[in-house]
Amino acid sequence: MDIKEVTSSVSEELKLFQERYKTVLHSKNSLVDKVTRYVLKQQGKQIRPLLVLLSAKVFGEVGDSAYRGAIMVELLHSATLIHDDVVDGAEMRRGIPSINALWKNKISVLIGDYLLSKGLLYSLENSDYRSLHLVSEAVRRMSEGEILQIQKTRSLDITEEDYLSVIADKTGSLIATSCAIGAASGTKSEDEIASLKHYGEYLGLAFQIRDDLLDYTGDSRKTGKQLGIDIKDRKITLPLIYALQHSAKAEQNRIRSILKSSKKRAVRSSDVIAFVREKGGLEYAAEVAEGFAAKALDSLSRFPQNEARRSLELLVDFVMKRQH
Amino acid sequence: MDIKEVTSSVSEELKLFQERYKTVLHSKNSLVDKVTRYVLKQQGKQIRPLLVLLSAKVFGEVGDSAYRGAIMVELLHSATLIHDDVVDGAEMRRGIPSINALWKNKISVLIGDYLLSKGLLYSLENSDYRSLHLVSEAVRRMSEGEILQIQKTRSLDITEEDYLSVIADKTGSLIATSCAIGAASGTKSEDEIASLKHYGEYLGLAFQIRDDLLDYTGDSRKTGKQLGIDIKDRKITLPLIYALQHSAKAEQNRIRSILKSSKKRAVRSSDVIAFVREKGGLEYAAEVAEGFAAKALDSLSRFPQNEARRSLELLVDFVMKRQH
Repeated sequence: MDIKEVTSSVSEELKLFQERYKTVLHSKNSLVDKVTRYVLKQQGKQIRPLLVLLSAKVFGEVGDSAYRGAIMVELLHSATLIHDDVVDGAEMRRGIPSINALWKNKISVLIGDYLLSKGLLYSLENSDYRSLHLVSEAVRRMSEGEILQIQKTRSLDITEEDYLSVIADKTGSLIATSCAIGAASGTKSEDEIASLKHYGEYLGLAFQIRDDLLDYTGDSRKTGKQLGIDIKDRKITLPLIYALQHSAKAEQNRIRSILKSSKKRAVRSSDVIAFVREKGGLEYAAEVAEGFAAKALDSLSRFPQNEARRSLELLVDFVMKRQH
Repeated sequence: MDIKEVTSSVSEELKLFQERYKTVLHSKNSLVDKVTRYVLKQQGKQIRPLLVLLSAKVFGEVGDSAYRGAIMVELLHSATLIHDDVVDGAEMRRGIPSINALWKNKISVLIGDYLLSKGLLYSLENSDYRSLHLVSEAVRRMSEGEILQIQKTRSLDITEEDYLSVIADKTGSLIATSCAIGAASGTKSEDEIASLKHYGEYLGLAFQIRDDLLDYTGDSRKTGKQLGIDIKDRKITLPLIYALQHSAKAEQNRIRSILKSSKKRAVRSSDVIAFVREKGGLEYAAEVAEGFAAKALDSLSRFPQNEARRSLELLVDFVMKRQH
């Protein structure tokens, strides 16, 4: 399945978004302009603006406030990715060097702050207060989620509940916000906006669990990520949480002693993968993701059977089936 | 002269601000709460909230929206300082270890993002759109100013005009915004708001030029900063710009060759200081600062001669006389 199947119902709108996004990114400062043009090159699937446009189109035409919302969430998402790469010291992003690899940390943190303020200003200038409120809440949840994750990762005592709270904040919040912004541009019904927001939150949860599963099952030639890299980074995700919870104390201690030492993690990550497989951690995580996917689809049931709704449904499929 | 002379007219208001600020900083996440409590310990003179409160009091009572504005600018200022320390790799902040020294870069960038979004959310929840607009513009100017500075510093061709533009954006903008937010809470007159905004911008310019002068003239036991540290960091400020502009080509080249090499900067910064002294760079910068101080005072002339206005005038004096 290709992402193009999902985007076909808003392909014209995506083109228009892309043009406007480029215009907004333009800066009179030559260095800022150079870096932001590079940000455009690094671009991924632009799932968040896609969700704004699709959620708007569920209600008919895509209006200007939806385009502005799409631009704002993409600016914000780009800002957080740039900051993430700084904090992780990542050298690459989507197959090309990261901003910090090319321009160092100083410029990278500043460009992140610049994109963030640009997004907020852009919405303020257009009095998109509803979108602003939604997006600020997402920024707060993203930073809180990231901090909770670091905290729990350090202490190695993350529960399934903590994990779900972290991924809901880190991944779910901005995806949910994107859907809510799109919906709010097309309807005044708070119930309808809430339904699309729930769709986004569940989609985000399913997406992140599938993403975390790929660390155990993925084909590294396709994902571009080494198998077990999360384990090496001491990142404890749902499959491992389940496996630890369903094993005897002695076994738990054996795995914990690997996780505690960076040397052991580097050479014995395959032991951890085998342990997770044996305990049924992969099946369990896949089931939980299926549950959220079903809830995402269920959140759409109230809407008319139009092309945009069909695309949102296909996107759930796409997330559940992707192998990289 | 002590800052207490300036703050006495709003000492009760500052206490109330401080209480509310602490409440807003509180987080349910124990790590976030720990770091933000540490941020409170690192606090400086809180010039920006002071300016919000004084600018509001020029028009009479200090209302709730002024307190909220004061909290927002301080949250924002704290966020930018934390990011600054990350990008500069600073180990200390106001005599105690920096956030990045204690919690590493990852947590620091995130706490900065958290404080920024907290400030924005807080204003959004209270529908302080005017304040939000003012503050977002300041965030954009601050990041653009910082980037222009890095760009010009690298190429060593910064003019007086560039320098003034950089410090207006980096330092002037948030100080001007603080005054405008305070003013907007007390008057509907756009002219009056603009006058206090101009006061802030000029005050910020005078402050930064004085601050940059201290790098050449300061007593390191009082400033806590080594003399010539800006030169070592290849930071070219007004005294040096003037001196370079008023010297022969051969001399310019001699100084530039020192500035280009980090080794030479480290051992020969006293040569640069002597050169600047000899060319009259210190007197010139002091004159320019005096000019902005006079303009700041002039911007206040339309307002009634009350205690708050007197404090704003005293603050200009304080900035012009401080030795550390």
